[in-house]
Amino acid sequence: MPDLVFAAKPELDRVLALPIPPADRVRLFAACARLNTLYMIARAGSGHIGSSFSSLDIVSWLYLEEMRGVRADDAGADRDVFFSSKGHDVPGLYAVLLGLGLLPFDQVHELRRLGGLPGHPDVGTPGMATNTGPLGMGISKAKGMLRANRLAGRTGRFFVLTGDGELQEGQLWESLASAASAGMGGITAIVDHNKIQSDTWVRSTSDLGDLVRKFESFGWHAVRCDGHDLEALERTFTTLRAVGDRPKVIIADTVKGRGVSFMEHTSLGDGERFYRFHSGAPDDESYSRAAAELVGQIDGLLAAANAKPLATATRERPPRPAPRDPQRLVAAYSRALVAHAERDPRIVALDADLVLDTGLIPFAERFPDRFVECGIAEQDMVSQAGGLALGGALPVVHSFACFLSTRPNEQIYNNATERRKIVYVGSLAGLLPGGPGHSHQSVRDIAALGGTPGLEMLQPSCDAEVDLAVTYCLEESAGSCYLRLFSVPWTVPFTLPADYRLVRGRGVALTEGGAVVMFAYGPVMLGEAVRAAGVLRDRAGIGVRVVNLPWLNLVEEEWLAAAVEGARAVVTIDDHYVAGGQGEMLAASLVELGYHGRVVRLGVRDIPACGQNDEVLRAHRLDAEGISADVLTALGPGWGD
Amino acid sequence: MPDLVFAAKPELDRVLALPIPPADRVRLFAACARLNTLYMIARAGSGHIGSSFSSLDIVSWLYLEEMRGVRADDAGADRDVFFSSKGHDVPGLYAVLLGLGLLPFDQVHELRRLGGLPGHPDVGTPGMATNTGPLGMGISKAKGMLRANRLAGRTGRFFVLTGDGELQEGQLWESLASAASAGMGGITAIVDHNKIQSDTWVRSTSDLGDLVRKFESFGWHAVRCDGHDLEALERTFTTLRAVGDRPKVIIADTVKGRGVSFMEHTSLGDGERFYRFHSGAPDDESYSRAAAELVGQIDGLLAAANAKPLATATRERPPRPAPRDPQRLVAAYSRALVAHAERDPRIVALDADLVLDTGLIPFAERFPDRFVECGIAEQDMVSQAGGLALGGALPVVHSFACFLSTRPNEQIYNNATERRKIVYVGSLAGLLPGGPGHSHQSVRDIAALGGTPGLEMLQPSCDAEVDLAVTYCLEESAGSCYLRLFSVPWTVPFTLPADYRLVRGRGVALTEGGAVVMFAYGPVMLGEAVRAAGVLRDRAGIGVRVVNLPWLNLVEEEWLAAAVEGARAVVTIDDHYVAGGQGEMLAASLVELGYHGRVVRLGVRDIPACGQNDEVLRAHRLDAEGISADVLTALGPGWGD
Repeated sequence: MPDLVFAAKPELDRVLALPIPPADRVRLFAACARLNTLYMIARAGSGHIGSSFSSLDIVSWLYLEEMRGVRADDAGADRDVFFSSKGHDVPGLYAVLLGLGLLPFDQVHELRRLGGLPGHPDVGTPGMATNTGPLGMGISKAKGMLRANRLAGRTGRFFVLTGDGELQEGQLWESLASAASAGMGGITAIVDHNKIQSDTWVRSTSDLGDLVRKFESFGWHAVRCDGHDLEALERTFTTLRAVGDRPKVIIADTVKGRGVSFMEHTSLGDGERFYRFHSGAPDDESYSRAAAELVGQIDGLLAAANAKPLATATRERPPRPAPRDPQRLVAAYSRALVAHAERDPRIVALDADLVLDTGLIPFAERFPDRFVECGIAEQDMVSQAGGLALGGALPVVHSFACFLSTRPNEQIYNNATERRKIVYVGSLAGLLPGGPGHSHQSVRDIAALGGTPGLEMLQPSCDAEVDLAVTYCLEESAGSCYLRLFSVPWTVPFTLPADYRLVRGRGVALTEGGAVVMFAYGPVMLGEAVRAAGVLRDRAGIGVRVVNLPWLNLVEEEWLAAAVEGARAVVTIDDHYVAGGQGEMLAASLVELGYHGRVVRLGVRDIPACGQNDEVLRAHRLDAEGISADVLTALGPGWGD
Repeated sequence: MPDLVFAAKPELDRVLALPIPPADRVRLFAACARLNTLYMIARAGSGHIGSSFSSLDIVSWLYLEEMRGVRADDAGADRDVFFSSKGHDVPGLYAVLLGLGLLPFDQVHELRRLGGLPGHPDVGTPGMATNTGPLGMGISKAKGMLRANRLAGRTGRFFVLTGDGELQEGQLWESLASAASAGMGGITAIVDHNKIQSDTWVRSTSDLGDLVRKFESFGWHAVRCDGHDLEALERTFTTLRAVGDRPKVIIADTVKGRGVSFMEHTSLGDGERFYRFHSGAPDDESYSRAAAELVGQIDGLLAAANAKPLATATRERPPRPAPRDPQRLVAAYSRALVAHAERDPRIVALDADLVLDTGLIPFAERFPDRFVECGIAEQDMVSQAGGLALGGALPVVHSFACFLSTRPNEQIYNNATERRKIVYVGSLAGLLPGGPGHSHQSVRDIAALGGTPGLEMLQPSCDAEVDLAVTYCLEESAGSCYLRLFSVPWTVPFTLPADYRLVRGRGVALTEGGAVVMFAYGPVMLGEAVRAAGVLRDRAGIGVRVVNLPWLNLVEEEWLAAAVEGARAVVTIDDHYVAGGQGEMLAASLVELGYHGRVVRLGVRDIPACGQNDEVLRAHRLDAEGISADVLTALGPGWGD
């Protein structure tokens, strides 16, 4: 395992002080920022290299040369603001801010750690103008900020970076027209046109056409330039300053992964469909090659500036043990979907640029005619599913749970009012992984889809239950379903009974217990519940029966009555906000049943923390320690067997 | 009160059989359809005249001349499909289908009645291809239908009418690109470009620019023509048939209110900002003038065809008594907002083309610089509000509750994660009015916004409580609020105590009672609850204390414990789905409090019925009769004092 290298602050200060032309200095600074971005992502174990690298020349130019009032830490009237609408390129932005002293440099070691730098931008971090991560909101946000500036008599400008795949989002286009009619010349959008979105080529996902013409047809002043040619960027920004009240957009042609030859999308072979460096950390060997290449590049630029080579700093690479014999629910889902589709020709799978994460590659390869890649267009996807269902198909709709439950929320309801069957599959559900941050930690989806008539929601706890749940959704249920999937390979400390069958509204006990029944669902919370039960027995002599209840918004009354029979307390654990989660539904059902024992609801109560998985569980008191301690506190003394 | 006139089926059959050129026959048929549309809307007491009239020449042409397989009631492979994406123009479509015998003609009398023709399209009605009403979904739906056709080997085409204001919705643009790349030549969109959206001119709300150029830049084949020139429509559709795989769009220049001189938008004077015939029924005098003008027009066209004048049929105009001394919550809100804005310069109001319905005209006139008309662009509006809040303003965001809680659902959550204060005001909340249908009956908003961290939701019950609620939201609350407003002028059978103060998490008793405590909120359900309490006392001797609890997602524990003290049963009544409503929150709180009595939750349990207000309350068993009967059934015998 090689050490990780980075450029420390004194070396960055040396680069910034070199007496060379601005474009040369920015080029050098950006190369150093790439090295530090790579360091941060490798250390964190995840992050987005490709678009951090594609945007770094632009972002560096903005901070070093174009923007006013950002390097002095003032909040003056003329302070310009930059943010990235896509947000996942924030490691690159962090590297720039760290290099400029706008973030404490020690934070370079703290990407995606609790109290460190979140996986997507958060206004709690110095230098972050707004929270991004969900796509398409950036120009709207800038419009609001500009309006606030106008009301307050401030004149700062706004530079908003967007992705090119992001242009598939409807809100992006929704935000354009009124910016033009309101004369928002203070906004400059920059499209990081790196040609590759999360999964694959933008042009093969949903071709963008002539972007300059598109933006112009919405009333924007649009120009195109090479986003890595710093002299061209200098000329472009200078020219744009003379454009009056029209909002401006630069279509910046960039290379995804720019700066490391084998990470550049232009290195993809003819037959290669998927780009490997969008998200996730590089393996050891890729890391070492990439770091060496970047250091070589920096040294070359330094030599050209008659300066000595970079003195790199190093840190040990943190160990990252693989989980033992993990459950891989998305892979299990992937196999089950294909198996059902072999038998049921009505099944059509729809995806929104997350085919790698939602397990759809085998389906897409096996049934290309029944696979619809919608691009980053969740509203369009869900309404297309509605049309497919009206036409007799059985649509299965995929995205991350955080997006699927919220962005097309009205579209899901509209479909529900047509009473046709549609299956929604939300992956990356729940509090973990903790690294991406709250925009991706889906702990509001059960509530957000609450009240949708006829929609049954369920979450399997392990690979075996995935099979049963998919069969339920596709074959057994007459109505629509929301299948909530946890995405991280995960070791669980329980097994389902060998004869377990999934029955609507019913759960299954995983441990035998005494005074307390504990309901949970999904691999993480069930695992912690089983561990917490052990702690409660060992430390306080309290017997806890842990029940896996995969049904999130319904429960069979008779089964529930039997399940809590004799228990003096019920504890519910939500991998979700307590408000609107399974626990609320259960608590309401219990009072209707006339249950007279204690009821304690645990779950997420504040905006999810970003960090490593164990850090995040602990921060929300949803690890076994936190759960058992909170149960003891809530129950008070006198509960031992 | 004049009688209402319509063209009965035999007369329409006579028109259809006239041996005249297609364009002349369609012109005549469309004029008759306008007369029947006017009849239906006048009889229903509400509906959308303006855009029904602007679209009727196009819709009539499509059904009489262009579309295949629709007049014979078959489901053959070549069946073409028409629907309107905006949906509110459905009275015009109904008139066409009634005229062609594709709907039972008796339904001409049943617009917006229970079991009749819903206010927005519903697939439960013959001839309706999909549920529309929420804007921007139509092309996506058609894409799904076309995909289903392809999979099933069907070749039918899809004609989708959209509004022009509707083009402000992001989903519309989101849906375009992949239709082009998927070669969906089977889809023809027709923009009913009548220049006026819900409130006022499209160009002054959010200018659309050059629509042909815009659509072309998204890869569509775009043409423009006069949407009332039937010969031009004939030529246009003929030409388009020769265009291959590219999806097609016709920008049809139309006149809102076409056919009745004083309803045509072109009759608006220079200083007139608001168009009067978008929604709602005409007054008696306008009705009579309009009907006379349409009959004259029909007779003129018949004379030109050497046919005898129209024999009109008549029906008595149903009485529509005004409510006695009604509460007008939106007007009260309107006044309160202006009063607060006078004192607090941070307040900025944002609207999404519903300024007439959300009470914002006084604000917009008093504070033009602090009013943002976003157009039909709820996602953009909410993210702009986020930007404004980050910039130090106090944004107050307005739309109908059904749209505001769902379309920008992710944007509201994104704002919440920035922990800045924003006030959301959702009007037209709850089951009533029952006429528009389920797309507009907002009974899912509490659930849909559930779990949003820091968001407090409340609904005032009367004008007096509106004042208190607005003060709470704008002055007292540290965090964000969702203010849920009922929009119909309504007579309530209760008054708040003279010394009532709004206290976070607490309610107030409206009646004194005995064994039962009944919680409700808002004018409608509180009114029915008070009446139901009377019924329960009179018929069964059961004492019911009715409590107004305006807090929808929170309750103060101590107050709740005191409020249910001594009560043997608690009944909750939600103007919302039972799932995710106030009752669920209360039931969960009660079990945590250790409440040992009975709990009965009432509310909406299925997709809202469309009909007159009393019909709808009765259909959902949420009128006093239904509530009292269901309480008696749930409690069983033995509850009298």
